[in-house]
Amino acid sequence: MSTNDASMTAAAPGGIGNFGPGLDVLGCAVTGARDEVTVRWASDEGVVILDAGHPRLPTDPMKNTAAIAASAVMHMALAKGCRVADRGIAISIRKGLPLSGGLGGSAASAVAGAFATDALIGASNLHSRSAGRIGVLSVNELLECALAGESAVAGRHLDNIAPSLLGGIILVRSLDPIDVVRIPVPKGLRIVLATPSHELTTTVARGVLPTVVPREIVIHQMAQVASIIAACHSGDLALLGRAIDDRIAEPARLPLLPGFQQAKSAALDAGALGASISGAGPTAFALCDSAAIATRVAQSMQSAYLRCGLESAVRECEVDVCGARVMRA
Amino acid sequence: MSTNDASMTAAAPGGIGNFGPGLDVLGCAVTGARDEVTVRWASDEGVVILDAGHPRLPTDPMKNTAAIAASAVMHMALAKGCRVADRGIAISIRKGLPLSGGLGGSAASAVAGAFATDALIGASNLHSRSAGRIGVLSVNELLECALAGESAVAGRHLDNIAPSLLGGIILVRSLDPIDVVRIPVPKGLRIVLATPSHELTTTVARGVLPTVVPREIVIHQMAQVASIIAACHSGDLALLGRAIDDRIAEPARLPLLPGFQQAKSAALDAGALGASISGAGPTAFALCDSAAIATRVAQSMQSAYLRCGLESAVRECEVDVCGARVMRA
Repeated sequence: MSTNDASMTAAAPGGIGNFGPGLDVLGCAVTGARDEVTVRWASDEGVVILDAGHPRLPTDPMKNTAAIAASAVMHMALAKGCRVADRGIAISIRKGLPLSGGLGGSAASAVAGAFATDALIGASNLHSRSAGRIGVLSVNELLECALAGESAVAGRHLDNIAPSLLGGIILVRSLDPIDVVRIPVPKGLRIVLATPSHELTTTVARGVLPTVVPREIVIHQMAQVASIIAACHSGDLALLGRAIDDRIAEPARLPLLPGFQQAKSAALDAGALGASISGAGPTAFALCDSAAIATRVAQSMQSAYLRCGLESAVRECEVDVCGARVMRA
Repeated sequence: MSTNDASMTAAAPGGIGNFGPGLDVLGCAVTGARDEVTVRWASDEGVVILDAGHPRLPTDPMKNTAAIAASAVMHMALAKGCRVADRGIAISIRKGLPLSGGLGGSAASAVAGAFATDALIGASNLHSRSAGRIGVLSVNELLECALAGESAVAGRHLDNIAPSLLGGIILVRSLDPIDVVRIPVPKGLRIVLATPSHELTTTVARGVLPTVVPREIVIHQMAQVASIIAACHSGDLALLGRAIDDRIAEPARLPLLPGFQQAKSAALDAGALGASISGAGPTAFALCDSAAIATRVAQSMQSAYLRCGLESAVRECEVDVCGARVMRA
């Protein structure tokens, strides 16, 4: 084992899951904050967590999204006959994304864990690398491994995982088998994220989702998600804004999201194309067609939350088109 | 009134509504059969039907889709201050599309009636014509008028109306206000239509649709409709085929569609990319990526229906990209 193979660090961006009406099927990665995971070979079998990245994140590798994903990659690589340099791996997590913020933090950790482990194994198995990749697993295999991590904490869906790994805007056509579709990022799209100072766990936020949906709402929702895809392909930002009209998750989660309705109205009044909840919340996102409008929208959203007695962290960003990346070998 | 203004004939194509999973939101026009409507000025107020086009179609202008649409155009044009050459219109319908076949016949008649009436009024109001059009109404106004006709017989949805008027593949984002989106037609797409020898009224077929849908099915269905849009934009016919996977209308209507499941299986076995019900049925459609496969698929579907004791009319066609057109002034 060369020293270069000894450790690998990967970063993966957070993002917006449940993109507007796209519950569980549409997400995008955003620039700015990300999680980083470093993996190194260890002589004990399995995965050990050296640093969970936050006092409230589990150090039990069976409960930690990054560790579960890393372990899944190890198992899959071994099943493919790849060589491993040692019997286990030790991982350290640096959280750049908020916990329970609705910015895909658990997904980003899972993706970074899977990506770093795959790259670490790839360094010992140059002949087994996937075409054009630094690891040994295919994209769908990596998604499967990261999904194993995400499932443990946030449910079995890829709308944060897939954009965090691949970058950009991703449509999840199917989980079984995994079938994801890259959607073009429309030119000029700016995103404002506003995270108010209260947490909302994905478990609680998923608990309020309706188990059945009236047919009229289904038809509306299908049309909006489809329109987002059309808008991204044609670069029609106005259509994109009109299609950010979620009648399933947003109404159900409103009672859990103090200040959201006011922040959304403020965003639209300030010129946002559309606004909704990022992931399971409480982060709100707004789409804008210029940096100047995004700045105005960010200020308006922050003021609206303040009027509701809530501090909020706001930031302006763009779609992250890179996705997961190795930081240093 | 010049003799040129005396009558106008318009044709409008049939098509596939509820395109696969796209219940009420996605449709395409198809080449081949179409309905034609001729309108001429008449001295009696209102609309009179000279020929309903089929013994079973209503001659009462309050119940006839083409007449209702024509009447709506008259009212809207008058409200806009357009001149009319006489107090009423007389219309004659030539049905090229089957009754209760699932090929958008009622929509095509409504569109042809609206389009012909609009063109007839346009000939007397050259200064009031909409930009680039031969009539006086905007596209959305024409859609509104045709929808009034369609609503009377088939329910308030635009997934047949909009493609019949505009041609191509159309996504209906919203009915109130009307907001339709043109989707590119992927290169090489061939369509097989198989109409078995039994009728199914839209009313009966809509009656079996579920009023509520489980969330998992909603998520699946949103993802499929969105994937169709992505596939059409990127020209990915394989993805288009995978996305023709309707879990709302198709399962509900299966009991009403003897032979359909067998014809669908036969189509897929013969190389179709995907297959489902056209509109409310009983016509089945299959998508293919070559004319040779389409021919084989058509034969296979016809044989499958025959084995179920049903004659069927099959035809191979393409997406009609023209939509409604004036045949002769």
